[in-house]
Amino acid sequence: MIKTIIGKPDFVESLRGRKATFMLALSNTGTANIEGITQAGIPGMIHLTPTLDSEFVCTGEVRSLDNIAETPKGVPTPALITRGVHLLSPYYAIELLDLGLEVVPKVSYFKQHTFNITPSSSIDKGAGIDAEALFQKGVTFGQSYECHSDYVILGESVPSGTTTATATALALGYDAKELFSSSFKNVPHSIREKTIESALENISDKNDLFDVLGSVSDNMLIFNAGFILGLNNRLKVVLAGGTQMACVLLIINRIAEYMGGNIETSNLALCTTKWVAQDEYSDIKALLEMLSFPIHTYYVDFDFSLSRHPALKLYDEGEAKEGVGAGGALMYGVLNGLSKEEITRQVEYFLQS
Amino acid sequence: MIKTIIGKPDFVESLRGRKATFMLALSNTGTANIEGITQAGIPGMIHLTPTLDSEFVCTGEVRSLDNIAETPKGVPTPALITRGVHLLSPYYAIELLDLGLEVVPKVSYFKQHTFNITPSSSIDKGAGIDAEALFQKGVTFGQSYECHSDYVILGESVPSGTTTATATALALGYDAKELFSSSFKNVPHSIREKTIESALENISDKNDLFDVLGSVSDNMLIFNAGFILGLNNRLKVVLAGGTQMACVLLIINRIAEYMGGNIETSNLALCTTKWVAQDEYSDIKALLEMLSFPIHTYYVDFDFSLSRHPALKLYDEGEAKEGVGAGGALMYGVLNGLSKEEITRQVEYFLQS
Repeated sequence: MIKTIIGKPDFVESLRGRKATFMLALSNTGTANIEGITQAGIPGMIHLTPTLDSEFVCTGEVRSLDNIAETPKGVPTPALITRGVHLLSPYYAIELLDLGLEVVPKVSYFKQHTFNITPSSSIDKGAGIDAEALFQKGVTFGQSYECHSDYVILGESVPSGTTTATATALALGYDAKELFSSSFKNVPHSIREKTIESALENISDKNDLFDVLGSVSDNMLIFNAGFILGLNNRLKVVLAGGTQMACVLLIINRIAEYMGGNIETSNLALCTTKWVAQDEYSDIKALLEMLSFPIHTYYVDFDFSLSRHPALKLYDEGEAKEGVGAGGALMYGVLNGLSKEEITRQVEYFLQS
Repeated sequence: MIKTIIGKPDFVESLRGRKATFMLALSNTGTANIEGITQAGIPGMIHLTPTLDSEFVCTGEVRSLDNIAETPKGVPTPALITRGVHLLSPYYAIELLDLGLEVVPKVSYFKQHTFNITPSSSIDKGAGIDAEALFQKGVTFGQSYECHSDYVILGESVPSGTTTATATALALGYDAKELFSSSFKNVPHSIREKTIESALENISDKNDLFDVLGSVSDNMLIFNAGFILGLNNRLKVVLAGGTQMACVLLIINRIAEYMGGNIETSNLALCTTKWVAQDEYSDIKALLEMLSFPIHTYYVDFDFSLSRHPALKLYDEGEAKEGVGAGGALMYGVLNGLSKEEITRQVEYFLQS
């Protein structure tokens, strides 16, 4: 049920039965406030999405709003999948990375790593991130992070994160315009493209890598690039996501070129959903093949074909694809013996209650 | 579903819900090249069986050949059972012991213990093993082995290993001629018996225990006798196999007599399949009752009565009985809540795809 996109199954097979810490990188970017740019959340409340996602994954409750984040068409957040797996085959721990949240998640007893990071601005006006300092925070965290389980699954919740990821990859010179995913089925090219174009215009006079990142990127992308480099292959890490996590790797790739170092990635992998892997509007494989280092890449052959719930069928129609580490969560479930049927029933249960 | 052959259920019950490291002892012996002596593999490619078995258990793929090892009549390798349990209720880890392989398994990220051991020769011409040195390698490994899970399941894949085990037991003076199992239903007595007779003739002038073992035995048997003695009851170990694992214990028994020591076996057990336990052509209970120490012995009351797959029905007809730690794998599955139905469906799935 776990399919290999790049590399061989050995890495993911060696994680079978092992316990993972599920780490959720959370951030707000002003980019999400551009009307119509994302459907990852409730209109007017988009900034709450990472807060609500993390509250729900940790506790089963959304506390900073009455209802769980749904998109306008009623596609429920992939946090349902991430939480569903946790109920059936629990992660060793869930830890939150506050990488610039407007509203801090209201959870206790869960480790919330804070770094004094503020939400970034919209990239069409310049994100205003001190990218070098932020990157360094990631590196320091990676160097000092202590893992008490067998490996780490790193997911994210960053509304309009695919827009900032696309802008970032293009700004870094990757020929990647048509390769990025979006949470929309009918990706609103006009709004996204205008935003990305504006972002790229802002950096026309910039040469420094970190200056560029600070203008067009988001906190999650920059911090995690530092985090992974800081870990220095010391732990097994599965990047749980689609094109946004691919962009973290694209940044790492440029930084490695910039700093002239080699990158050891034998303990690093990316795992995403079938919805991303088979998305006709994006191409994660092509993105990852732009890297100068090898990266184990997998997807989980899971869909909602066993469900009749209309909100879940929308996933299979391409309306939602990934997020909140859903691909990595599904991988973890499968590696611990869960069936498609069990996961489907658990997610359906959330929608009934 | 786990039945006691010797002793009480307490030992195996104390392992319920615990995580095991699945260790697979792999070896080639030239004995397997005698035509018609074994059906554990593809004719002409028998030597690949342990390599393919371990590749499949670890990764779900056979890499050193296109198709998974099947016997001439189409009985699939018991590795399907071992892998099937791993998918449903994963072992903590899978580790391989290379005890003289012609082809090294092509797997990464799995621990492959190597000891600079070469395949042994056919016992009808003398196996040519430096048994004392090999035994000592096992002892050293047992003394230094660090287990990160709750216990160890030790399985094997050694084509024509029942022939070398029978020869070994007879050479060591056990009255065991009719007690040993074979992977054949209609055991080809003439070829096996001729081979064993030749092996026994070769040692007519030998008195030293290790000289005898070096001529009639195989690497798996000798190394594991050392391994178990080297562990010195420090870890809980389940020998996952039938008459071959019984032979490891018969060797230990003779070495204990030879060296004059007492053997503590409170943390040691043997668990096999129903097909071995109820085999009318062999008698594992009688073999184990020849030991001067007690040994917890179990079998798992699993068969393929829930399947209609013709290849699996052959198991129930006595064509395949044990191997690749299948008995221990079934035990682990049952101890972790798997049903007969679940295991059957998973094994069937491999044959469909």
